Amino acid sequence: MQKIINPSPSHTSQSSHSFVLTRDEGEIIQLLRQYDQISRTDIARMTGWSRAKISLEMDLLIKKGLVKEMGEGISEGGRKPRLLSINDGLGFLVGVDIGATSIDLALSDVRGKILHRKSEPADVRESPDLVLGRCCELICEMLAAQSAHPDKILGIGVGVPGPVEFSKGMLVAPPLMPLWERYPIRDFFRKTFRSAFVVVDNDVNIMALAELREGDGRGLDHFIFIKIGTGIGCGIVSNGKIHRGADGSAGDIGHICVDKNGPVCRCGNLGCLEAVTAGPAIAEYAANAARDGSSSILAKKMENNGGKLSTEDVGAAMREGDRKALEIIQYSGRIIGETLASLVNFFNPSYIFFGGGVTNLGNQLLSSIRQAVLNRSLPLATRHLVIDYSSMGPDAGVIGAICLAKDHLFIVVN
Amino acid sequence: MQKIINPSPSHTSQSSHSFVLTRDEGEIIQLLRQYDQISRTDIARMTGWSRAKISLEMDLLIKKGLVKEMGEGISEGGRKPRLLSINDGLGFLVGVDIGATSIDLALSDVRGKILHRKSEPADVRESPDLVLGRCCELICEMLAAQSAHPDKILGIGVGVPGPVEFSKGMLVAPPLMPLWERYPIRDFFRKTFRSAFVVVDNDVNIMALAELREGDGRGLDHFIFIKIGTGIGCGIVSNGKIHRGADGSAGDIGHICVDKNGPVCRCGNLGCLEAVTAGPAIAEYAANAARDGSSSILAKKMENNGGKLSTEDVGAAMREGDRKALEIIQYSGRIIGETLASLVNFFNPSYIFFGGGVTNLGNQLLSSIRQAVLNRSLPLATRHLVIDYSSMGPDAGVIGAICLAKDHLFIVVN
Repeated sequence: MQKIINPSPSHTSQSSHSFVLTRDEGEIIQLLRQYDQISRTDIARMTGWSRAKISLEMDLLIKKGLVKEMGEGISEGGRKPRLLSINDGLGFLVGVDIGATSIDLALSDVRGKILHRKSEPADVRESPDLVLGRCCELICEMLAAQSAHPDKILGIGVGVPGPVEFSKGMLVAPPLMPLWERYPIRDFFRKTFRSAFVVVDNDVNIMALAELREGDGRGLDHFIFIKIGTGIGCGIVSNGKIHRGADGSAGDIGHICVDKNGPVCRCGNLGCLEAVTAGPAIAEYAANAARDGSSSILAKKMENNGGKLSTEDVGAAMREGDRKALEIIQYSGRIIGETLASLVNFFNPSYIFFGGGVTNLGNQLLSSIRQAVLNRSLPLATRHLVIDYSSMGPDAGVIGAICLAKDHLFIVVN
Repeated sequence: MQKIINPSPSHTSQSSHSFVLTRDEGEIIQLLRQYDQISRTDIARMTGWSRAKISLEMDLLIKKGLVKEMGEGISEGGRKPRLLSINDGLGFLVGVDIGATSIDLALSDVRGKILHRKSEPADVRESPDLVLGRCCELICEMLAAQSAHPDKILGIGVGVPGPVEFSKGMLVAPPLMPLWERYPIRDFFRKTFRSAFVVVDNDVNIMALAELREGDGRGLDHFIFIKIGTGIGCGIVSNGKIHRGADGSAGDIGHICVDKNGPVCRCGNLGCLEAVTAGPAIAEYAANAARDGSSSILAKKMENNGGKLSTEDVGAAMREGDRKALEIIQYSGRIIGETLASLVNFFNPSYIFFGGGVTNLGNQLLSSIRQAVLNRSLPLATRHLVIDYSSMGPDAGVIGAICLAKDHLFIVVN
């Protein structure tokens, strides 16, 4: 029997630098993670174990180098207690968030504290060798700033914008990045970082994980995170765990049919949610409005941009008071909200977080979504439902990637 | 820290006859449940514990009366091992499945082996006192057949056809049974069965639980169970656990909008899935076909039934070759399937089980559902998806109610 703290099925390639713990050690590590610094007395109170047992376990963990003694805590009468913490000198974790048009990376200590960040434009349609090679270079740059060797990387969490077969760490039929089909991402990283385990997940799943571990999703059992950008996807948390589904494709809501006579989607079907409402659709509706004379503001923007319009332009036009831009955003929000209403009835989340590029369209989009959800969901399912933008903004991905690595750092064996 | 074996949040009223176990005892009980009869050597192999520790734990469990020694197992060389089992003399569990028009009850031993069954018609629109009072009488009859006192009932699992606030064991705004709104079901049972804990859940959740513990859902991490009858609801399993959602209303898919201009639903909205496709809708389409002359077979059946048609009549007409009846069933299946396609994209289950009265419409319904799901879901989400009737038939509810009680019999405290 093997289980992973904050677990999911097994899937780190060879679990190279996952640390294997007994169940009791696992429990202590869990407490140290939860409280960061904690005394033996605290642990005794929380576990109900004897002082002798705790001393024994602690000495072993300190000897293994996993735990270290910190300063003294506040006395509750008598000697000041010595505080214990996970040893942040163990090594480093890396978070890699690969987006359609950018890569975001972070280097953290084993407690998840971020030490360095790197971001740059990238094109995910390129070959994986190129994109991942650049990621490795950037990781080495961050390591150099710490004067550390690549072997000090213990684990790497990677988010990618496509469906992932989680147990294998591979993309399966990714529409945005066909060259990545079943590419061995883990092996690529492990050529440079030989001590590291590598865990790969879908980009929206790691955003949901970021909210669950570090954001407003802490303590929530059931929520969803929706990313609206070039496409639309969602990360799902059920009973406090990421729900990936039977084939790892859970959350692929961009291809739910919202209009049987709608436009052709890149997946080949008609009227998929993302074909009708995501970034490119919004830009296209705006371009049509510019061309057919129904919005002079959009027409002017298009002219200034050399015949193109982006979702940012649509947002700007709305803020300048353009009626057509507002209508387009409201339409998109309403259709997204109607689709979510079905999912709210089915899943009954307590929170729906929104992230991704299109969220810069602001409150108009959100209020249209809210209104449609409340109109069509059951009252019982919406009485405590919060619908809001993720307060993590564009950092959700890379924070989630670090959390993913952190979740797999320790393995508990019975 | 308190957790329940095969758990969910806490919710047995006062956990009267839940047995409180240490973590190690919990692990042994889990193994005894899994393998029914098992030797100390088997437990040593599976836990990695020493023989001394296992002997100590076992002696305590036997002393508490929770475990008993059975006959001898097969020798692997040397002395024949003595087999151990959970003590089935501890007491009894009860499963109560309250449907819209019937009650189904079962009495089992603590291992979940069903000893007696009772079923009879009932009308859930009646007062809860009346319906639950009758349940208590039937339970006492089953106990009498075992010459046992009501205090020997350790736990009662109850399924009800409406949304349940699981932590309180109460129905919230149940459309079928308004008199049950926030009625204290637990307290009612505990007046007669003073030693019993009572756990109340939605009827479709317990059907999903039955599949998860005892049916084709064993070993599956992610599946859904859909009941089609007077209404449509679904039970959801995520990561091997029942997903009840933030307010306990998860799975209420009957009120997903499938036609904005559709008929008025009993919830007040237009075009809800169940208003368009469930039993009453099918019967109404058939009655229309009988009246407007498009089906002579349905017209004849309606005449013979005194002006009424049931879903059974529609099924019979279809089997007699009636084209219109077939069309009605196919239409219902297609709309259900299109709705499920969205949920499959979102949730990515590996299995969709169907149960409930309408399932007697047979394979035509199922194949229409299948076709619509495969047409509109992503290939990755359907490559291993099985869509089939539950092989438990009408027993799923009562078996699930027993499983619910069994899940709460032992509580593990750290």
